[in-house]
This record gives sequence, C-alpha cells and structure tokens, in this order.
Amino acid sequence: MADAATVRRRSRGTGGGAARRAERTAVSVETARYIERNIPDLEILNDEALSLIENGAETILHEIGVNFVNNPAALQRWRDAGADVSGERVRMPRGLARQLMATAPSRFTQAARNRERSVEIGGRSLVLAPVYGPPFVHDMNGGRRYATIEDFRNFVRLGYMSKWLHHSGGTVCEPTDIPVNKRHLDMLLAHMTLSDKPFMGSVTEPSRARDSVEMCEILFGRDFVAENTVMTSLININSPLTFDDTMMGALEVYAAANQACIVSPFIVGGAMAPVSVAGTLTQVLAEVMAGIAYSQLIRPGAPVIFGAFVTSIDMNSGAPTFGTPEAAQITYGAGQLARRLGLPYRSAGAFTGSKLPDAQAAYETSNSLNMGLLSGVNFMLHACGWLEGGLVSSFEKFVMDADQLGALHKLAQGVEVTEESMALDAVREVGPGGHYLGCAHTQAHFKTAFWRSDLLDYKPFEAWAEDGMRDTLTLANARVRKLLEQYRQPELDPAIHGALNDYVARKKDAAPDAFS
Amino acid sequence: MADAATVRRRSRGTGGGAARRAERTAVSVETARYIERNIPDLEILNDEALSLIENGAETILHEIGVNFVNNPAALQRWRDAGADVSGERVRMPRGLARQLMATAPSRFTQAARNRERSVEIGGRSLVLAPVYGPPFVHDMNGGRRYATIEDFRNFVRLGYMSKWLHHSGGTVCEPTDIPVNKRHLDMLLAHMTLSDKPFMGSVTEPSRARDSVEMCEILFGRDFVAENTVMTSLININSPLTFDDTMMGALEVYAAANQACIVSPFIVGGAMAPVSVAGTLTQVLAEVMAGIAYSQLIRPGAPVIFGAFVTSIDMNSGAPTFGTPEAAQITYGAGQLARRLGLPYRSAGAFTGSKLPDAQAAYETSNSLNMGLLSGVNFMLHACGWLEGGLVSSFEKFVMDADQLGALHKLAQGVEVTEESMALDAVREVGPGGHYLGCAHTQAHFKTAFWRSDLLDYKPFEAWAEDGMRDTLTLANARVRKLLEQYRQPELDPAIHGALNDYVARKKDAAPDAFS
Repeated sequence: MADAATVRRRSRGTGGGAARRAERTAVSVETARYIERNIPDLEILNDEALSLIENGAETILHEIGVNFVNNPAALQRWRDAGADVSGERVRMPRGLARQLMATAPSRFTQAARNRERSVEIGGRSLVLAPVYGPPFVHDMNGGRRYATIEDFRNFVRLGYMSKWLHHSGGTVCEPTDIPVNKRHLDMLLAHMTLSDKPFMGSVTEPSRARDSVEMCEILFGRDFVAENTVMTSLININSPLTFDDTMMGALEVYAAANQACIVSPFIVGGAMAPVSVAGTLTQVLAEVMAGIAYSQLIRPGAPVIFGAFVTSIDMNSGAPTFGTPEAAQITYGAGQLARRLGLPYRSAGAFTGSKLPDAQAAYETSNSLNMGLLSGVNFMLHACGWLEGGLVSSFEKFVMDADQLGALHKLAQGVEVTEESMALDAVREVGPGGHYLGCAHTQAHFKTAFWRSDLLDYKPFEAWAEDGMRDTLTLANARVRKLLEQYRQPELDPAIHGALNDYVARKKDAAPDAFS
Repeated sequence: MADAATVRRRSRGTGGGAARRAERTAVSVETARYIERNIPDLEILNDEALSLIENGAETILHEIGVNFVNNPAALQRWRDAGADVSGERVRMPRGLARQLMATAPSRFTQAARNRERSVEIGGRSLVLAPVYGPPFVHDMNGGRRYATIEDFRNFVRLGYMSKWLHHSGGTVCEPTDIPVNKRHLDMLLAHMTLSDKPFMGSVTEPSRARDSVEMCEILFGRDFVAENTVMTSLININSPLTFDDTMMGALEVYAAANQACIVSPFIVGGAMAPVSVAGTLTQVLAEVMAGIAYSQLIRPGAPVIFGAFVTSIDMNSGAPTFGTPEAAQITYGAGQLARRLGLPYRSAGAFTGSKLPDAQAAYETSNSLNMGLLSGVNFMLHACGWLEGGLVSSFEKFVMDADQLGALHKLAQGVEVTEESMALDAVREVGPGGHYLGCAHTQAHFKTAFWRSDLLDYKPFEAWAEDGMRDTLTLANARVRKLLEQYRQPELDPAIHGALNDYVARKKDAAPDAFS
C-alpha cells in the first residue's frame, strides 16, 4: 500500500505551489453531501406500545435506578437535581430525566475544517462514518493481524477518498504499536492532517478528551471551538444501567466544551439486556435518558445523540450475531423512541459476525445498512469496514461497504413524479414493441438516471471470464490499492500543521509509555 | 449429489410400509407457514404522486394503447368490451380497464396437495417461491454449465427441504437435455411427485398450459380443480405495451380454468420503459391494467396477481443491474399502486448480476429481499437461487438465500410489547452491572427469542480457524449435499403417481422431439 504518511509541508504562493495544487486536484476526492431523507421512516411500533415502553423506562429509573461508579461529583449533581442517591445508585422521580433532557438540541452542526464538509446531525439527515474500535485489521494479502498506526492512517486516507462517507470517524482501528496513553494523539493528528472531513474525539480517559479539545483549538482556533461543535464522540454505557467514571469523565469534558456526545448503550441482547425486543428497548430508553439527562446537568444545551448499539446473541455459542431480525426490530423501535424525544439518533452499521468479507458478511451488512436508512438513523457509525463482530477492520470490506452507501443516498432521495419524469412523450415516441435506448428522454437523462457502483462487476459472463473471473474480494483489493495510490493529502496551513506536531511531540515527551 | 430421481412406488399397508414411513419422518421437512405481515409497508409515494401515475396510465391506455399480437379472438373481445381496436392496437376509453379489473379477487388460496402447505396470496401475506427460468446451473464443484432435468429435480428436492420456502416454483432451471416441447411434462411431474408444496404451470404454449391443467386434474381430482386454484403461473408482458399470443394463449387457458396468473411486465428500465422511475411506474401500471382487464374478459373473477419485474440498466455496458436503488423505488411504488387496486402483488427476489455467489451477490440479494418484504409483496418469485441476472440457478446460492428468508419471517412478525415481554422483573432481578444470561426470563425464552441461521458461521475466530476457515460458499456447498442426502420423497397415492407417469409417457410418445 502507498505510504503517504510523511507529512509534507506546503506553503501557499511559493514556487511550484500552483503546479502541486493542479496535481492534487487532478484526482477527484468528491464527497457527497450528507443524506437528507425524502422518504418516510418505517414505524413498526404503534403509539400504545411506545407509551408502554416509555412508562417502563420511567419505572426502571424510578424503582431500580442506575449506578454512577467512582464519581462523587456526579452523585452530587444528581442529588442537587432532585434524584434519590443511595451509595452509587441514582433513582429519579418519574419525569425528572425527561425534564432535564428538554434542553438538548434536536439537531446540531458538526463543523469540519473544510466547511463544505460540515454535517448536520438530526432531523431528516443521515451522516455516515466508518468502523470504530477493532484491534485487528484484515486484508486479502496479509490476512488477520494486529492493527498499527500505519493501518490507521491508511483507513483515514480511504475514508477521505470515499465519496459516500461524510465523516472520518474516530478509532478506525486500534494502533496497537503506539503506547495506550499516547495513541489518541497520533489518531487525532491523522484525522486532522490526512483528511478534511469531520471526526471524533478520544474517550478513553478524561485527560485524553481534554487533549482532543486542545488539539481542536489549534486546528480550528480557540474562539471557533468555543462557539461551535467540532467533535462528535462515542460515550458507551456499561449496560445494564451502569455509568463508569472513564466514560462519564470524557462526557463531562465534552459537554462542558459544548462538544457532541453519542450516549449509547452497548448491548448484546440476552446478556446485557432482557432476551426480548420489548425488554431491550425499555432498558435502552432508560439508559439513554439517564445519560442524556446527565449531559444536560453538565451543560444545558450540550449537543447529544440518542445512541443504540444493540445486537442479538447466538444462544448456542454465546457469540454476538449481526444483521439479525431482532436487531432490526430494536433499531426500528429505538428510532421511534428517539424521534418522540426529539433527539438525533445513532444506530446501525455495516455489521457482520463473519470472519471474512464473504457472502455472509454482505448479507448481514446489507440487512443492517437498509435498516439503518429506514429506521431514521441520523449518525451511522461503523457504516463501512466492520468485520468479525467488530474485532477486525477490513480494508476490502471498507471499500465494498462504502460503495453500497451510494445506494442509500439514491434511495433516500425518493421519487420525483412530474409530467416530465413520467415521460409520456417518450412512451408516445417509442410505442408498443419499441425500445427506449435511443429516444430523446433517455438521451437527456441516462447519465444521471441510475446509481452505478464503482466496484461491483456488471459485465456479461464472457467479458468477466476474460478479465480473470474476479470475485468481489479481489475487485475490492484492487480498489484499495488504487485509492491509496491516488490519495493526496488535503492542504492545511503549515503553521497549524506545525503547531499540531509540536503539541503531539510535547504531550508524548511528558509521560512514560504505557501499554495497558 | 444424491440421485433420488427414480420414482419409488409405495403402497400403504403392505409389509414394511410403516417402517419406511418412520424412516422418512425421521428427517424434519418442516415448512413454515406463509408470512403474514404484522409490520407496515414502506410507502415512498404520496397520494398526489400516485394519482398522477394513475392518470398517466389511463392516458397511455387511451391515447397510445397496447398491442395484442396474432390474436384475433382477443381483439374481438376488446371490441365487444367497448375498446377502440385498430389493426392489433387496442385503445381503451378512460376507466374501462379499471372497471373490468373490479371482478378480480383481492386474495385467493392456492391449494397444495399437502393441504397444510396451501398458501394464501393477497392481503398481508407473503409467499416465497424459488428462482425461475435460468438455462444454466452453477455449483462450486462443477462451475457453470447447461441445466439438465436431474439438476431440475435436485432444485425441487432442495425446495422441498427448505423450511422457509412455501412454494415449489416453476421452471427452477431449464432442463435443456429434454426436448423443448416435452420438458414441461417432466418439470410438472417433478413438482408433483418430488414435493408436496404448491407449484406453477407451463406458459410456453397454450397447449402446454392445457397439459398442466390436465396433470393437475390427475393429481388433485377433476372436481377439485374445477372448484379450486391449484396453480399460479407466470405471464410476462412483452414490454413496452405488447401482449403476444403465446403468453396470452396460456393466460386464456388458465383464466378459463380459474387458475391464477401473475400478469407481469418484464422491464429493464431505460430499454423497455422510460429511464425514469416515474415513467417506468406509469408504463407498468398501464400494462398490468390491460393484462388483468383482459383476464377478467376471459372469466370474471379469475385469480390474478399484479406483477412487476423491473430492474435498472448499466448505461456503460447495457447489462441489467440488480439490487439497485432505482429498482427498489419502483418496487415500493408498484406495491402502493397494487394495493390501491386491491390486487395481490408480485415483485422482488434474490436478484443479483454477479457471476458468483460472492459478496456482490449477497449485497444485491439482501437489498432486494428486504425491499420485497417492506414493499408489501404477496408472491415473491426468485426468492432463492438466482444468479448472473437470471441466467444461472446456483445450488449454493439457493440454500444461502433460503436461509436468509428465515430472517424475513421473524422481522415480519413485528414486536410484541406487553408487561411480560418488557421483562421489568428481569431488570429488577439483574440490576445495574449484572448480566441476564442466567435470569429466569432468559431461561424461559432464550430458545425462541432469536432467529438463528442454519448456515452462517457464528463461531469465534479460533474455532472457525480450527474448522478450516470456511467461507459462506463452502458452508453452502456442504449444506446442499446434506439436504440432498437427507431428502426423502413425500408419499403419494401410487395410483395417482402411476396415472401421472402414464400421462407423461403418452404425451411424449404422441409428438416428435423438438429442440427449438
């Protein structure tokens, strides 16, 4: 794979700058605007069912409560807000969480350094971001292995080159060759310098969340960060009903800085929640309400997302399963609950339990992507590249999934029905038994009429056989290489780039390496 | 593959019959009941758009008209009904087709010889039938080759063994080793004797449709066939706007015998219909209205299905493309049009343009299957086994797709929200930080809580690696072998079986072989 990791310093107006810019723009790095749905959501629960679940969630918060672990300040905030606190358990009067959540915005803008790539999160929008979290990577050539920072950078480059990906994501893979306490610096530097799309901050320690804010202040300017949301970060809840101090500490930093958090139960149904769809939805709602209410205790108006990472379990092996009908039912239902709260919604992704980017992976992924579009998801993390239940980031699957995301864009546009689009003149021109290939309406519209994959094979058998009978994996492997070869780093003010490098170097020097 | 083609004659009550029956029932050949949806349809067109399309279809029928080719009797029927007939062109006063269609039933029962497997077609039902029409077959061992009658029989056996397939289908592949004018006899004999699920009749000549009815009279009894629908057959329209005498001749036979027909435009958008979704929908509606109106001229009340086989085209190569967003938009829209007419709806399928059962095949298929469920399809032909744009029936993809159909069943059930299913007692029992694996609610429900694939790999990496790192294709190949080995022919009265054999032999002897 192309190694473009070396940071090339560029200066505007000096000799050769124009030529270099021309070279850079020779390769298209077009990015589609985030999706604005013009089709309805699929609503599988009726009002009575939704009310029952909402009432059940209030019962959980009131009777059972949630634990805020190792976090005396949080317990004090809850006490001050009127909750009943006993030990680390927080029980809320009915209605309290809902009342606190009322200050959370229904939509917000996350700014990108390339403002054309800023995204709206909420309402009818859908923002697509890549896989998050795997310690392993996989490709056709090298198989499965621990991820490195160079893998990480290549995924950021692929995300930058992917037309249908609006967001650079966060931990696209874990760079296991960098000390645990320093890798967030290298990851952020990669998102900030190798891409110009929006990105996520670190959540693995409150101090790393503060580092993320400080690096954003260098990249965007301190005043801009004070007034704008420039990161959307992932705060997982330790389901069932547990809010640990690491994740809550990061949330506290981000909410105080007016940066967005996804407040997201992480549930394998049957293990971290009841084995029923209705029970899981009730617990998810209670957990999200507690987390988002807490974010508004930190700073009323702080931007948040109703998150739901929920999947089913194989009761034979205990393994989580993906692309399953129960996961779909939960995702559709949670979307309805989020909309009733007027909150942006995060769920779905290119999920699969398969160990390879094979047919299983594609069936499960396609089930999940379609469900994500139709369930009203506003922010889809893991929208490409996820493999093996989230243990692996796959290079080939990244470009395979990213290509499918194009189909979601087109489907979401809906159908324009007008005299022009009904094309009765074309039907008159062609008549019974004719064909439309050459008619005026076809000539005027064929270039834009149909979405076209940049990856899949549409050739007839004979041409495909002559080309070497390549399967999707082989085609994807070639596309990964091509995109990385074509990649050119987007321009960044060298003074800012230098300041970011200095910040990372200073932070790394200030502490010994830690690998656990 | 197992060769179970030899017809074994069985008699009840003779020595060994009980033992053979016990052996046969030892292998489960459970078939799920057809799907009855408890979730809504996705409606992407508003009332105004639907009215525009309906008005446009009336304009096509009135101004442009349709051709009934080589069919003077049909032209006379149209004249008698009040249409304007000029040459072979039939133009209808606005409202005539709609008025004639009013006698078509909104749902009907197709009886199977095993009455437990009879299906309801219409309303909220979804009946799943296998691939139809390919001249080639493909498997992992032998690659791509012309289909034979033994391939055909093996697909019928696989369909019989597939829990989620409600229908045995029709031309699951073309048995190219049998003369063209005789293969319908062997195909029908296979469906009738190797399976006990409902099936389709021949449509390639009116005389073959009559043979199909006569064979059904042997299988079901003449009186039963006179009073019940026992076949659902596929009548394609030669889009644009052309009804040929072969297909219409078959429709005339079936409608007169009160047997069901799918009246189905066959459209590659941009070639056989305008290059826009709205234009294609308008033409589809006009064609279906003309065809169904004609069926009711033959026999008012004859059961029919609003069919739509519509896909997009790759304007670079001219190849049809599958699993695309435009095909989805047309399928969703045509479903709305069918429901407004109160007619059963046929569309979707396990569509793909891929030459292999690889990731492309699975992405495209999964897109199509999900769309089929959510667009309100009542009869889904091609629900498993389709490959290479319909040129190939794939053994492995047959079982891969058939497995995915299980997920559709579960998703269609919807979500039960009750005090019991919300499981607050389980949340109380487990509390913050616990797990649900051992709790009472989980123990009571885990066996039925989650749909489970019979094919896909859910194992962790290490166990999967030890098992030989098998991909989906390899797993499917093993499943095909296993199902064919486990297959046992369902019982059939030997007198009936003998009469069917005699009928086929007599018909074959009565004409010379024809291979084109």
